[in-house]
Amino acid sequence: MALSELHDRLRFVLVRTSHSGNIGSAARAIRTMGFDRMTLVAPHRFPDPEATALAAGADDVLANAAIHEDLVSGLAGTTFALGLSARRRGVNLPELDPREGAAQAIAAARRGEQVALVFGNERTGLENDELSRCHAMVRIPSVDDFSSLNLSQAVQVVAYEIRMALVAEEAKVPEVALDPDEVPADAEQVERFFTHLAETLDDIEFHKGRSPTTIMLKLRKLFLRARPELRELRILHGILADAQRMAGMAKKGD
Amino acid sequence: MALSELHDRLRFVLVRTSHSGNIGSAARAIRTMGFDRMTLVAPHRFPDPEATALAAGADDVLANAAIHEDLVSGLAGTTFALGLSARRRGVNLPELDPREGAAQAIAAARRGEQVALVFGNERTGLENDELSRCHAMVRIPSVDDFSSLNLSQAVQVVAYEIRMALVAEEAKVPEVALDPDEVPADAEQVERFFTHLAETLDDIEFHKGRSPTTIMLKLRKLFLRARPELRELRILHGILADAQRMAGMAKKGD
Repeated sequence: MALSELHDRLRFVLVRTSHSGNIGSAARAIRTMGFDRMTLVAPHRFPDPEATALAAGADDVLANAAIHEDLVSGLAGTTFALGLSARRRGVNLPELDPREGAAQAIAAARRGEQVALVFGNERTGLENDELSRCHAMVRIPSVDDFSSLNLSQAVQVVAYEIRMALVAEEAKVPEVALDPDEVPADAEQVERFFTHLAETLDDIEFHKGRSPTTIMLKLRKLFLRARPELRELRILHGILADAQRMAGMAKKGD
Repeated sequence: MALSELHDRLRFVLVRTSHSGNIGSAARAIRTMGFDRMTLVAPHRFPDPEATALAAGADDVLANAAIHEDLVSGLAGTTFALGLSARRRGVNLPELDPREGAAQAIAAARRGEQVALVFGNERTGLENDELSRCHAMVRIPSVDDFSSLNLSQAVQVVAYEIRMALVAEEAKVPEVALDPDEVPADAEQVERFFTHLAETLDDIEFHKGRSPTTIMLKLRKLFLRARPELRELRILHGILADAQRMAGMAKKGD
């Protein structure tokens, strides 16, 4: 199934939004995640230049937004609705986190259902009678002492989770091989570098009575952790060669 | 380990932010997810009433924000930095999605590291030299034809992913803290090493017409990947000092 077909089965429903700017920001948020279906239920003011400004180019989302007077008509044609809520209690609905909500939304869309993601008013959220039209409640796990996300941020989080789930499903394709240049160097190549490094430390008189073995073990650990690529080893060899050249010249000058 | 201790090890770094409102929205976003450490690098205007208005009560985050002139000082004290970027190419850094980035950030914080989540300017993002201070790049999987999230939305997504991972982990067993000597060197210490390395490459006449910038970017990538400890950096400084000494003697002998 093409992703675009699934996207068409998911709509973002904003209920009684007070600030037109949030409608614009929400349009941008869903557009970045590949969605374009928005329903506005009794928006305080729409269309509005503030919405257009904050949509930042997601004009198609705003232009095609469906506008309804109440949630019942706003949900017409949908079969599965998830209501966002910051409240933990009061409504007797299954409570999902956004990841679980995204999984259920996608599963429903795959079955051919039309799915609504429903977001309430900025200050008051969804009323109980609005939540009662939903099949489950999605709660973003905010902290108790500062629990209220901006409306468009909540829309972004939900759209992001759905996108992540869709991308993960899409990516179940064979893995592409690495660029040969980006493969870590093999053991022999790395050993050659360590040999060159040890010689250079001798040449530049680094040890000064300290144990070469201990130092080399520490340097080994550092460079093995980095898993150098062959082209990186080439640069390091070049640096060592120049340090050796300087040491050679220094000794001639002595 | 208490969650609050982990939260204290994670900071959100906003670089060259143009719109003060975004600083406020970002403060609110991180506060809802339980975080309160924000660093502002060369903000266009701060403090600003617009930031305060959009923080919607997250005034403590704004009041305690650290302000720096450049990213190097903004990252002082951190040992692990993730840079947000919408770009797919150009910078040779490991690319993570927000979930992978969150997992790595938490793993580092659990080891006792100070972690930075770095967000660039609204229009231009992070510059390459800013990304080159980061250990990996985080890309939010937006669609190709409309890829740019609002800055505070990107902050929200990352903070949300970290929160989700922490909430999921909350019940797990405490991890053992690292030996203080085994903690990776912090950003300032690593920068000091890169400065010394660049000087040494000049002294030993390594460049020979090649671009110092390109080579330094490649070496940065290699060493950042290794995440050197302070005592390892001391060894490297010692090696560089001896190579410089040889170069000095060689030139005297000329």
